[in-house]
Amino acid sequence: MRQIEMCNRARWRRMRLAACGLAVLLAAGPAPAEDSSALLQLLEVLRDNGTIPAEAYEALRDAAVAEAATTDAGGAESTPAAEVATADAGGVESTPAEPSAADLPGVEFDLGSGGLEVATADGAFSFQLGGRIHFDSAWYFGNEDVFGDGTELRRMRLRWDGTVWSDWDYKGEVDFAGSDVSLKSTYIRYSGFDFANFVFGNFKENFSLNRLTSSNATTFMERAAASTVFSPGRNIGLGVSSYGKLDSLAGTGWTASLGVFSQGENDGGPDNEGWAVTGRATAAPPLGDRGFVHLGAALSQRGYKDIDMLQLRARPESHVTSTRLVDTGDLENLNYAFQYGVEGAIVYGPFSVQGEYLAAGYSRSGRNLDFDGGYVFGSWILTGESRSYDAKRGIFKSVVPKQNVGAGGYGAWELAVRYSALDLSDADVVGGEQEILTIGLNWYVNPNIRFMANYIDVLRVDRPGSEFDDVEPEIFQLRGQVNF
Amino acid sequence: MRQIEMCNRARWRRMRLAACGLAVLLAAGPAPAEDSSALLQLLEVLRDNGTIPAEAYEALRDAAVAEAATTDAGGAESTPAAEVATADAGGVESTPAEPSAADLPGVEFDLGSGGLEVATADGAFSFQLGGRIHFDSAWYFGNEDVFGDGTELRRMRLRWDGTVWSDWDYKGEVDFAGSDVSLKSTYIRYSGFDFANFVFGNFKENFSLNRLTSSNATTFMERAAASTVFSPGRNIGLGVSSYGKLDSLAGTGWTASLGVFSQGENDGGPDNEGWAVTGRATAAPPLGDRGFVHLGAALSQRGYKDIDMLQLRARPESHVTSTRLVDTGDLENLNYAFQYGVEGAIVYGPFSVQGEYLAAGYSRSGRNLDFDGGYVFGSWILTGESRSYDAKRGIFKSVVPKQNVGAGGYGAWELAVRYSALDLSDADVVGGEQEILTIGLNWYVNPNIRFMANYIDVLRVDRPGSEFDDVEPEIFQLRGQVNF
Amino acid sequence: MRQIEMCNRARWRRMRLAACGLAVLLAAGPAPAEDSSALLQLLEVLRDNGTIPAEAYEALRDAAVAEAATTDAGGAESTPAAEVATADAGGVESTPAEPSAADLPGVEFDLGSGGLEVATADGAFSFQLGGRIHFDSAWYFGNEDVFGDGTELRRMRLRWDGTVWSDWDYKGEVDFAGSDVSLKSTYIRYSGFDFANFVFGNFKENFSLNRLTSSNATTFMERAAASTVFSPGRNIGLGVSSYGKLDSLAGTGWTASLGVFSQGENDGGPDNEGWAVTGRATAAPPLGDRGFVHLGAALSQRGYKDIDMLQLRARPESHVTSTRLVDTGDLENLNYAFQYGVEGAIVYGPFSVQGEYLAAGYSRSGRNLDFDGGYVFGSWILTGESRSYDAKRGIFKSVVPKQNVGAGGYGAWELAVRYSALDLSDADVVGGEQEILTIGLNWYVNPNIRFMANYIDVLRVDRPGSEFDDVEPEIFQLRGQVNF
Repeated sequence: MRQIEMCNRARWRRMRLAACGLAVLLAAGPAPAEDSSALLQLLEVLRDNGTIPAEAYEALRDAAVAEAATTDAGGAESTPAAEVATADAGGVESTPAEPSAADLPGVEFDLGSGGLEVATADGAFSFQLGGRIHFDSAWYFGNEDVFGDGTELRRMRLRWDGTVWSDWDYKGEVDFAGSDVSLKSTYIRYSGFDFANFVFGNFKENFSLNRLTSSNATTFMERAAASTVFSPGRNIGLGVSSYGKLDSLAGTGWTASLGVFSQGENDGGPDNEGWAVTGRATAAPPLGDRGFVHLGAALSQRGYKDIDMLQLRARPESHVTSTRLVDTGDLENLNYAFQYGVEGAIVYGPFSVQGEYLAAGYSRSGRNLDFDGGYVFGSWILTGESRSYDAKRGIFKSVVPKQNVGAGGYGAWELAVRYSALDLSDADVVGGEQEILTIGLNWYVNPNIRFMANYIDVLRVDRPGSEFDDVEPEIFQLRGQVNF
Repeated sequence: MRQIEMCNRARWRRMRLAACGLAVLLAAGPAPAEDSSALLQLLEVLRDNGTIPAEAYEALRDAAVAEAATTDAGGAESTPAAEVATADAGGVESTPAEPSAADLPGVEFDLGSGGLEVATADGAFSFQLGGRIHFDSAWYFGNEDVFGDGTELRRMRLRWDGTVWSDWDYKGEVDFAGSDVSLKSTYIRYSGFDFANFVFGNFKENFSLNRLTSSNATTFMERAAASTVFSPGRNIGLGVSSYGKLDSLAGTGWTASLGVFSQGENDGGPDNEGWAVTGRATAAPPLGDRGFVHLGAALSQRGYKDIDMLQLRARPESHVTSTRLVDTGDLENLNYAFQYGVEGAIVYGPFSVQGEYLAAGYSRSGRNLDFDGGYVFGSWILTGESRSYDAKRGIFKSVVPKQNVGAGGYGAWELAVRYSALDLSDADVVGGEQEILTIGLNWYVNPNIRFMANYIDVLRVDRPGSEFDDVEPEIFQLRGQVNF
Repeated sequence: MRQIEMCNRARWRRMRLAACGLAVLLAAGPAPAEDSSALLQLLEVLRDNGTIPAEAYEALRDAAVAEAATTDAGGAESTPAAEVATADAGGVESTPAEPSAADLPGVEFDLGSGGLEVATADGAFSFQLGGRIHFDSAWYFGNEDVFGDGTELRRMRLRWDGTVWSDWDYKGEVDFAGSDVSLKSTYIRYSGFDFANFVFGNFKENFSLNRLTSSNATTFMERAAASTVFSPGRNIGLGVSSYGKLDSLAGTGWTASLGVFSQGENDGGPDNEGWAVTGRATAAPPLGDRGFVHLGAALSQRGYKDIDMLQLRARPESHVTSTRLVDTGDLENLNYAFQYGVEGAIVYGPFSVQGEYLAAGYSRSGRNLDFDGGYVFGSWILTGESRSYDAKRGIFKSVVPKQNVGAGGYGAWELAVRYSALDLSDADVVGGEQEILTIGLNWYVNPNIRFMANYIDVLRVDRPGSEFDDVEPEIFQLRGQVNF
């Protein structure tokens, strides 16, 4: 045990790590005191010829054997699990076959997230590869002249990210699903200050809890319509973000972020790109000893300097179809937009509720426009797990099953119901109003594999004058996903 | 030796593996019994002062020295070569500088396939990266108003695949050659049952020996026209596959697979995607002690629910040109198709023959359509190697040279001749008939590098009324390829 | 120490390496002589009962303790730092926290370049992953009806390359920036001959110092217009290249290369692809003990067999805009082109000057066309570093700071001024003439992170009859980049 302690102490002094990391592991090996070992044989000879008395022999033999036993045990306790990055694999401890990380002299490896993670022991340099694959099938009932059943490769992403010289991180991610390759988060980040991180590149503007939560972790197959329509999504910009704890409020975590973004590309033409400023703040005070509350708000002021067109529209929370039941068409002569959202969630043991209200006002030549929407859902994890929370970013992470399938368990099962509303009609613009109810059943086989089933009932579509007025289908859809 | 045995026994109990894997390797190191070691010195002292007699000294010294010698030998014999995944690197033993795999505590590495392979020692988690690059040049003789000489990046693929939690595999592959990025096999597989694997995603329907064989391993630069025209290729679906041995028939291996697939995407429109069912079975009984026979058959029933168009066409087994000498144009008002193929091959030492007959019948408004085609080829590997066979999938793998170039050999050289026929004319559809003769020479420099030369003689094109009727060029084409 | 020597001797005999590499590291571990160890206890017993005299006890105890101490020291000295590939990370020694590489039995790892590098110990097999991300912003002053301010993801590349069987290298690189995915260098190389390397694939024709220098390393954000317009860039072809030293001329390095290339794809149509031959030679004699001179020339003869169109044009050395102030439009009925360039540079300590003159003559039906251009720039690295030179390829590499930011330094700062000229007007073609002055300030934070600021003054645009005649904006642009 002492060797392990020494190693922990020396851990961050890299030049020692090579010796130390190995020393722990080595202890498991050389077994100097087997029955047949020369030392034990010598002890026998010395006892037999009277050089050492029987009790000395026994004490020494026990010491030698104990040495071997200790080092064996030490080896067992020193398995590299201590090095496993458990951030995304919180379920690791729940299964006998842990993903393992090797603590090599100076370089550490981890396959525990399902992808590849390599890092120097001091963390100054690292490189990770991962991705996700989501496959969907959907069946549409009612209005068969509008929708067609089918399948879809919803997402097929490769991601690479790393750290150089301790303080600089980079990330690139590409999605190969769909007919075109699309670029996801791609940025450079400076994390050398304690008080905040600085990011520049193409990344999600910090707006809307549902929009910011990874598609690997969303409770339903598709995000609520309002959170996709009113969230700015990824744009090229510069952001600063911070997080911390308020000790005075017993464990309350908070986040705050602010960014300046370009409103998409101007294609090199004579028009200047519009600029936007977006900020978000969240707090997560504890709720008893089994839960917490999440509260947040976000604002975005967006200038449409020379680009005066925008289109707001949404699928019926099912992506296999490309039909949008609500759609404003092109909004013209815009000056600027002001968007805001308020968000809240309560997690208590296996139960949670979450909701958001989002709204956007557009200043234009002629009467201004105001649209809004929101959602509320409840989730119950039947197998007792709690939804995971990323306190540094103020968003949810994926549920991690206590018992993986194949490790004596049934994974985690989650039942959820969502009500979602969106109003895209105002003044002369009749984009339509929709209300949708979704019942979801999620099966988390292990931290990397999830199956989802959603039953969607489009409760109401009011879009007078459109072919989609009163088109209110029921939809059943399935997803199989791996993230690595 | 005993330590190694212990390790083998303990191999699948991962918590012990770190200690055990190391124990073997460690044995090579700590040399507790050098001449200068304290224990040996003590023995000398005890002998010299008469505490132990000379013979006891010698026995104990021998034991101590033997301990060191044994562990040295144990270390040498425990080199990680045993851990090298030799599946795709069958030629490894033929060269002095073997690609090496490191047996780290819990994580194993392999560069032997030319790409990167990382796995936990128990195989529960793995991650691989690889790809292929194929470059072609082609010259067309005769009919110079139809074809243009040129070069082409035929394939440029990156592939990533891995295993999570032992039973779940994933794979993604993307081809960057050509003007668009195209998605290749992308799926999630459950391999936790002994009797069969289950796959869902975008993958090749199991149909046609030639179509299923990797482009890294096909005997000719392009597959026979009939096997590309009548094979469904990759589609989104769900499949189950199994394989095994029939012990009663001395080593006979068999495979069977069945899948349900969506017929391509419906672009979200009102049309439902058609569905298809495809199955294939193969058997490979041995032929003496130097060969085997491959027999197989595949069926596919394909519904064209609301999609009523299909086009069958083929290049003249040369891909630099985009001209198709045979082409049905759009087939309309289809109801469903029934396709089948029978396949056979004999491998005996360096000689092999392989052939397939494929046919497709289309039910439609009006007279039904029947098209068919096939090929037969013979191959002689001049340097004596045999074609490799993947018994788990019932397909061929790449030839692996006995002696790599650069390791005292000339690689493997293969001479092959193929006759290929395709008939796309029936009823009112005059797609044309073609017969093509190809002579191929392949140079397998090592398991990763291959050069190919094909001389193609288009023997006959009958397509009355088309500009391509009687267009029967000769073609010379070259390929350089790397797979990793 | 002896163990380490043994290992060095045995280093290239791979079968021994596993044992040996570990032996060195293992020495750090098994600590057979702790105070509590059975051997030390035995020695005490034997001393206490008079079996061995006190002086023998002390000698033996010292031997046992020294054994442990020695092996500890041995472990410390055997850290794998000696294995770090420093080729591309020249700045490594300037920082306390070096990127580390693990010397595993047979496999070596390196994160020092910021990406992932894995290689077998003998170098016969390797695999690397890396890439680059460049983000730009630009503001255009004057002529606001022509340009629009904005941002751009300039480059977002993933690169994979490796070595198989010692003599064969491959490389693939893809750029995901922009609306389409574009393929960069993708080739297979044979490096088994001492006198030259052979490459086939899609790679940069060897022409123009500025064009050949990596975008990670160019002194200004965009290359001089003439070097992009007159350089052939990447094409599919076959090349041979060589380099060496002229000992008679004290350290003079030289390079020579020749290649045959296809002129782009013919899309499979009836036109043959044109072919081109391109060669380049450089020499780099030393200049005192702190500098060197680079001299080079390149020629290219290009046939336009059946493709008779070409367009020459250039952005104003700023890429956020897509406006080209000079543009020949389509040049038709071309027969062939003859292009050449001469290049020179002087580096002396932190100072350097570099310049090129490039010209192209086009033979066509009607009067032939002659265009030309060039640039000259001076650079001063304020922090004292010298520009790095790749003597094997005759091009410049990125400046490497002596002191990274975060390691007690301010990185490297470089000030540079460039004059660039381009003349695309001749005979009936009035493509225009432009002269541009650029002032650049570069901050090399560390070998992986660079920020750039360019002030561009378009001095003159003469393009009579065009809307862009006399359009001479000033431009300010910024870049943040990571390469890994």
